Amino acid sequence: MNYKLILDEIGFEISSLDDEGVVASYIPELAKISPNKFGIHFYKLGGNNFGIGNNQEKFSIQSISKVLSLCLAFTIEGDNLWKRVGVEPSGNSFNSLFQLEYEKGIPRNPFINAGAIVICDILVSRLENPKNEFLKFIRKIAENDQINSNSQVVKSEKRTGFRNAALINLMKSFGNIENDSDEVLDLYYCICSIEMTCQELAKTFLLFANNGIIPSTKEKIISKSYSKRINAIMQTCGFYDEAGEFSFKVGLPGKSGVGGGIVAIHPKNFSVAVWSPKLNKKGNSVKGIKALELLTTKSELSIF
Amino acid sequence: MNYKLILDEIGFEISSLDDEGVVASYIPELAKISPNKFGIHFYKLGGNNFGIGNNQEKFSIQSISKVLSLCLAFTIEGDNLWKRVGVEPSGNSFNSLFQLEYEKGIPRNPFINAGAIVICDILVSRLENPKNEFLKFIRKIAENDQINSNSQVVKSEKRTGFRNAALINLMKSFGNIENDSDEVLDLYYCICSIEMTCQELAKTFLLFANNGIIPSTKEKIISKSYSKRINAIMQTCGFYDEAGEFSFKVGLPGKSGVGGGIVAIHPKNFSVAVWSPKLNKKGNSVKGIKALELLTTKSELSIF
Amino acid sequence: MNYKLILDEIGFEISSLDDEGVVASYIPELAKISPNKFGIHFYKLGGNNFGIGNNQEKFSIQSISKVLSLCLAFTIEGDNLWKRVGVEPSGNSFNSLFQLEYEKGIPRNPFINAGAIVICDILVSRLENPKNEFLKFIRKIAENDQINSNSQVVKSEKRTGFRNAALINLMKSFGNIENDSDEVLDLYYCICSIEMTCQELAKTFLLFANNGIIPSTKEKIISKSYSKRINAIMQTCGFYDEAGEFSFKVGLPGKSGVGGGIVAIHPKNFSVAVWSPKLNKKGNSVKGIKALELLTTKSELSIF
Amino acid sequence: MNYKLILDEIGFEISSLDDEGVVASYIPELAKISPNKFGIHFYKLGGNNFGIGNNQEKFSIQSISKVLSLCLAFTIEGDNLWKRVGVEPSGNSFNSLFQLEYEKGIPRNPFINAGAIVICDILVSRLENPKNEFLKFIRKIAENDQINSNSQVVKSEKRTGFRNAALINLMKSFGNIENDSDEVLDLYYCICSIEMTCQELAKTFLLFANNGIIPSTKEKIISKSYSKRINAIMQTCGFYDEAGEFSFKVGLPGKSGVGGGIVAIHPKNFSVAVWSPKLNKKGNSVKGIKALELLTTKSELSIF
Repeated sequence: MNYKLILDEIGFEISSLDDEGVVASYIPELAKISPNKFGIHFYKLGGNNFGIGNNQEKFSIQSISKVLSLCLAFTIEGDNLWKRVGVEPSGNSFNSLFQLEYEKGIPRNPFINAGAIVICDILVSRLENPKNEFLKFIRKIAENDQINSNSQVVKSEKRTGFRNAALINLMKSFGNIENDSDEVLDLYYCICSIEMTCQELAKTFLLFANNGIIPSTKEKIISKSYSKRINAIMQTCGFYDEAGEFSFKVGLPGKSGVGGGIVAIHPKNFSVAVWSPKLNKKGNSVKGIKALELLTTKSELSIF
Repeated sequence: MNYKLILDEIGFEISSLDDEGVVASYIPELAKISPNKFGIHFYKLGGNNFGIGNNQEKFSIQSISKVLSLCLAFTIEGDNLWKRVGVEPSGNSFNSLFQLEYEKGIPRNPFINAGAIVICDILVSRLENPKNEFLKFIRKIAENDQINSNSQVVKSEKRTGFRNAALINLMKSFGNIENDSDEVLDLYYCICSIEMTCQELAKTFLLFANNGIIPSTKEKIISKSYSKRINAIMQTCGFYDEAGEFSFKVGLPGKSGVGGGIVAIHPKNFSVAVWSPKLNKKGNSVKGIKALELLTTKSELSIF
Repeated sequence: MNYKLILDEIGFEISSLDDEGVVASYIPELAKISPNKFGIHFYKLGGNNFGIGNNQEKFSIQSISKVLSLCLAFTIEGDNLWKRVGVEPSGNSFNSLFQLEYEKGIPRNPFINAGAIVICDILVSRLENPKNEFLKFIRKIAENDQINSNSQVVKSEKRTGFRNAALINLMKSFGNIENDSDEVLDLYYCICSIEMTCQELAKTFLLFANNGIIPSTKEKIISKSYSKRINAIMQTCGFYDEAGEFSFKVGLPGKSGVGGGIVAIHPKNFSVAVWSPKLNKKGNSVKGIKALELLTTKSELSIF
Repeated sequence: MNYKLILDEIGFEISSLDDEGVVASYIPELAKISPNKFGIHFYKLGGNNFGIGNNQEKFSIQSISKVLSLCLAFTIEGDNLWKRVGVEPSGNSFNSLFQLEYEKGIPRNPFINAGAIVICDILVSRLENPKNEFLKFIRKIAENDQINSNSQVVKSEKRTGFRNAALINLMKSFGNIENDSDEVLDLYYCICSIEMTCQELAKTFLLFANNGIIPSTKEKIISKSYSKRINAIMQTCGFYDEAGEFSFKVGLPGKSGVGGGIVAIHPKNFSVAVWSPKLNKKGNSVKGIKALELLTTKSELSIF
């Protein structure tokens, strides 16, 4: 299959799309991004990689990095993890307190904010210097020492993160947070503020298309079984309250972020990252979802 | 791969399992089933089929038939369907009124009771004689004229179906039901009371592993795209509030019923049906889930 | 105090009010009422009575009659009643299913729809001919054989009462309804469709200002203690989700109906009924609440 | 009426009651109180006062002081207050986040925790030194310079107050908190930790039975209209999710606290305070409610 040609077609069709959606404004620093950015980058396992548009430009990957923090915590904690966070889709918006209260402080899955905060609490408990070790971990997977967190975005998120403060305090009231709230949220905001380009993101996630092994170095980061399980959680929980829609239209495990990025993988086959800052009402990139829908329609390569 | 051997191993391991779970009691007729039944049947696309245990015994497939009624409605109504029912996981128990009220009478997906009732309303609106035409439809797919609904179970469900009556009336108050409630529920209970053996069920669902085409007759029932979409809904919504867990542990699109049956498929590869009446708290067969977990662990054939 | 003068002042001030609110439209028969009707009638215990405006015109008292059905059931069933219905305000709209589901089919109080339906179920269980006996009961209290239910309104409510059908079926699923749903709803709609004038309504409710005794005949209908308790429920639950606001602004036990009527009493002192069909968003008469607020401000006669 | 005799009878009947309920344990400092304490004190407006049992012993009045902080804020802010907090009963437990989220950060009433926190935010915005001025305010009303907050209880509440931290952060995310969270919660905990004896408490609340005027000094603290409105809020919202029950059984405006205290008033007539630390499931003193029920039954002095 000529993926390069497919990517060019996608770029052409996306460029003629109506300019729907709005850039995330609740994090002031993100609201400054030019809304017209669009990039996509594709990595074939054991093959070529190519991209178009703004595929070499850094953006805030936001919630996408929750897959990486889950991956790190999974390597440390194993299945004990699931005592403190579930694997079910939330059926609610990504930062709802209601369900968390009803379910006594156990978040539905590690990709809603509450769940990602529990993952951070675990990293704070287990690691000497969690921020550094997280950065080291993703730099190794990305094979790239230039991956960093943006401190301006961290500050911006902290100043406005009252709802996350509500979530962590609610979980603390149920006994599901071990460490000091500020320390845990510090790590959380650092993780959310990681910046990557489409190319870097697609390369990083190739791991999950390759049963947990970094393709170039052959280093095994997580077991085949854990890698499949992370893919399964991406499939059912990767898109806030639009996971079913993404699964229905695109049919690949993936994860989105409010910075406008989406990454998706086809097991044993490829990974792809797309970026366009305008979001639909459910918080997912409008053009990003459309681009991936075109990709699986044209290539007929959904997992279903 | 020697699937026959794998099935034998599964049968052996399941037989030594503790006797957890309880038979569904809210439908009196189902409560009479012997709790120790266990059967599994496997169909390789373009290959052999084999089964073990009570794989030739009829049981009430219950919610599993919601996939078949969705399939029929999809062929008639196409994507118009999605104006009246969503494709998102529910994050709630299978018959909750709360979410339905909050979302103004639009059920989250076609596999929760409310969604399946909307599908029945569509069939009542579009078909001359919906019960007969539904039976004809599944007999064609199953290539078997002996598929029937059990009238004792229909009566039993009707007598105790107050919650379904609440659901349909709530949707009617929001304008999402067109026909007389009793007529729609009649069809609903008829559909839920279909009986099949594991072998019949696995054979019937081979369609969804084969892009919408009946393997033996080559008859195209639904388009490739629709077939993939039904698989996607099974993946995210097929197990009530345990879809994430099933995806995490088993990694195949599937659907369960409170009669203790589960069917799952691996696209372009195989279909498998398992039956064991004892259910966990979320309403899914304990041994059924365990058997499928063993199957994908041993065969390494999850879709992830 | 010159109540006649106060009433005249109220009539004058109300007449110059902006024409806010909307007539209830969900019961088609009620939507036909002229929106400009306004009447008020005042009964002093052991004294005069007088009224102004459309105080002699019949209107559909709707939920106001829930006080009378509660009163009848209380005389029959006594405190056993409270096993099947609570006395707490609902904190939700008057026909919410959510709270009813969460609280396992026990309605919060006898004045929300679900609670009034349970009261009807009790009357159907205990009375030979519940409709007749209810009519006899209120005719005795009203000292008026011309009190009737409007059969056109009954029909109109039945045709559109899907939400009430949902409520009763939900309660039946929890075991809190003993009789056939249709029979219970029949009585419910008959009770809601009672028609009275402001004068008749105020006279009828004098009972609750008089410790349960009909003032003219001295007949004791309910005990002093029961009468006080019904007043207490009116105070905390009489105005759907606006009970606190009414208590705050008016400070009298009372009950409203979507026909635009409100009745209120001052224990050992007076009863007053007002009618104006335009409702605020919470379903209570805009001018009715305003008129009663003026009454207690001018007379300084709240219970607080 | 011989109130002294009635009090003695109450004391006798209460002493023979079964020892139901549990002392509040979520605030460690309160858990240390002897569970068998019981005191009651009665103040007749323009008459005598008397008490029995542990009526002279200080206890933590907890939520009862929310009436006093509301009163102070009401004198400063007037009806502007009601833009930021409602007057409706909550229909939920006293610290639920769900309703607060659903209603976009506007608490239902000033007596649930979230509402009392908003009142504190107003005091922090308006007063130079809010803690001192609050203490001065209640000392004036109580005519007693020995009223103080217990700093051990303050510390104990702060250490475990994660749910209150969740509430204030949630409201801040909706823009309904103006000041720094820690400063507002500081004042909140100081207010909750006020200690009084039954006698002091009954004397303090005489104000609300006397139309806002301190009986002995004739100083007008709030207008007659405001005083009635505070009584109305006590009536509908004073007992968490048991306000209807208290209104039904006792029939007086009142307020309870998890320290086991309850104060109630009969307008233009009397005030009464009772203390017994064991609480029912809804967080109200078991013997306290029973004692007040006996009081209104024996004296026939409910407001209804």
